[in-house]
Amino acid sequence: MSLAIISPGKNPKIWIKEFKVLAPDLAVETYPKITEPEKVEYVFLWQHPEGILSDYPNLKLISSMGAGVDHILKDKTIPSSIPIVRIVDEKLTFSMTNYVVMAVLNFHRQKLRYQVNQTRKIWDMSNPELDVTVGVMGVGALGKDVMDKLNYMGFPVVGFGFSDKPDFEYPYYKKDNLDEFLKEVNVLVCLLPLTPDTENILNGELFEKCNPNTYLINVARGKHLVEDDLIIALEEGHISGAMLDVYRQEPLPKDHPFWENWKITMTPHIASVTNPQAAAPQVIENIKRIRENRELVNVVNRTRGY
Amino acid sequence: MSLAIISPGKNPKIWIKEFKVLAPDLAVETYPKITEPEKVEYVFLWQHPEGILSDYPNLKLISSMGAGVDHILKDKTIPSSIPIVRIVDEKLTFSMTNYVVMAVLNFHRQKLRYQVNQTRKIWDMSNPELDVTVGVMGVGALGKDVMDKLNYMGFPVVGFGFSDKPDFEYPYYKKDNLDEFLKEVNVLVCLLPLTPDTENILNGELFEKCNPNTYLINVARGKHLVEDDLIIALEEGHISGAMLDVYRQEPLPKDHPFWENWKITMTPHIASVTNPQAAAPQVIENIKRIRENRELVNVVNRTRGY
Repeated sequence: MSLAIISPGKNPKIWIKEFKVLAPDLAVETYPKITEPEKVEYVFLWQHPEGILSDYPNLKLISSMGAGVDHILKDKTIPSSIPIVRIVDEKLTFSMTNYVVMAVLNFHRQKLRYQVNQTRKIWDMSNPELDVTVGVMGVGALGKDVMDKLNYMGFPVVGFGFSDKPDFEYPYYKKDNLDEFLKEVNVLVCLLPLTPDTENILNGELFEKCNPNTYLINVARGKHLVEDDLIIALEEGHISGAMLDVYRQEPLPKDHPFWENWKITMTPHIASVTNPQAAAPQVIENIKRIRENRELVNVVNRTRGY
Repeated sequence: MSLAIISPGKNPKIWIKEFKVLAPDLAVETYPKITEPEKVEYVFLWQHPEGILSDYPNLKLISSMGAGVDHILKDKTIPSSIPIVRIVDEKLTFSMTNYVVMAVLNFHRQKLRYQVNQTRKIWDMSNPELDVTVGVMGVGALGKDVMDKLNYMGFPVVGFGFSDKPDFEYPYYKKDNLDEFLKEVNVLVCLLPLTPDTENILNGELFEKCNPNTYLINVARGKHLVEDDLIIALEEGHISGAMLDVYRQEPLPKDHPFWENWKITMTPHIASVTNPQAAAPQVIENIKRIRENRELVNVVNRTRGY
């Protein structure tokens, strides 16, 4: 039996190295050079070509190369009997949270205003802080950590999501109370999983319900955001600025209007990058568990979408 | 008896309003219009003209308008028998810490690099984070809070100071071990009080001992930093960049080289601004205590300098 890494356009070298250290006896093959497809029992996926998994008749386990699994679930040819697991990585949480906190602080302390003042040699001490209440959309492992850190730093936080959270320790709103949630906050952080429920959720209708000058931070998936609607919301003042890490098309095309919009701060999908050293042991652990017929860790619920 | 507010160039209006609410019976006068100097028992100071306090023969208490008292202690005409108290303000801590954390995160996540890449429409996902160990010079109420918050966010922190700290919960170095301290860190945060020990402590000799590409954050006092030495250290690469909030001369003169140095990010002494609503009750509390002959709070040790 073997593990097949299928990640077109992403170099798998560092993963192979980690797997060899952790499980020297495990055969590892790399797509598209899979010599013995009938021996493939485990696949490790990042944006695999749709339908390709039917080439492996003895497939027993699907591992995502990241925290998100939308790139797997959109392939409707995958039999529902094969379990899908994902990475839950502390280092990934560290990076994601610190990126979001950076974006919140730069808005709160008006980094952009002082940057402009510096170029104009203006010394203006007035109103050095904006009051912020941070609304976090998506309160899973990542969203909850963002809320804990911001709360510890002294910022009011409010959560939004699609699941019931009876004992959640911060104010929390569900889908039907989106309007109330938006009324509470002036910084909006998107950390939702990408599902049919959440695709295009950051759209013109939502922006119009935001408090004036709300700041947007999207670190989830490009498809959460209707990009044209954001441009309009920035012009109309519903949204005062945005820090974006993800886009509908990546790399972002050179002629995309985001590049030159001074209200948008951009990074190239680097808010949080899966760290092979932290993640590889989780992949190997689940392979071990499936061999020993034990319960898997970080299993994806296909109906929920994460 | 009365309270005299002496803060040339700073509008005392908002303080007067707070004092009136808290202590309606307390007479409040404002320098230079002090009509009855012999009635002044309490002064509330921000950069008062040196020697002026001898105009008040019945002075019993000196309150600083901020956390720092260097502006008071430099006036050697003040009798040592009069107690000096300062403001310790949670809101001040909140602001200072969040400013420092912002500066650390912008360095860690290379905000400047991505900003330049955005203007050039460059999509570069390589090496998205710099490893940082944050050295905090000055581990009083403010420095300790900065360390707690950064530690909670997952960053290694190391302290430096002039007092013994036998039970300090983070690695801590004293004056004689400055070199070792500098070897440990690649972000240097100055939160020291301004004393003869610490004036000009951020100088060329210190910068040469820093790890290459160390990042400097000065939120304490302008006189901690030898400004010409920083320019050289930035050119030579001992220091990779700096975020500065304080300067030897404020407002910073228009012809100062900092304005146009792209490695320096500047703000106009707004990292932490004393909040009258939080601070006024402390001033009034100490006036009450001195009247009732009770122990004062937040008393300054003149020898230590804070």
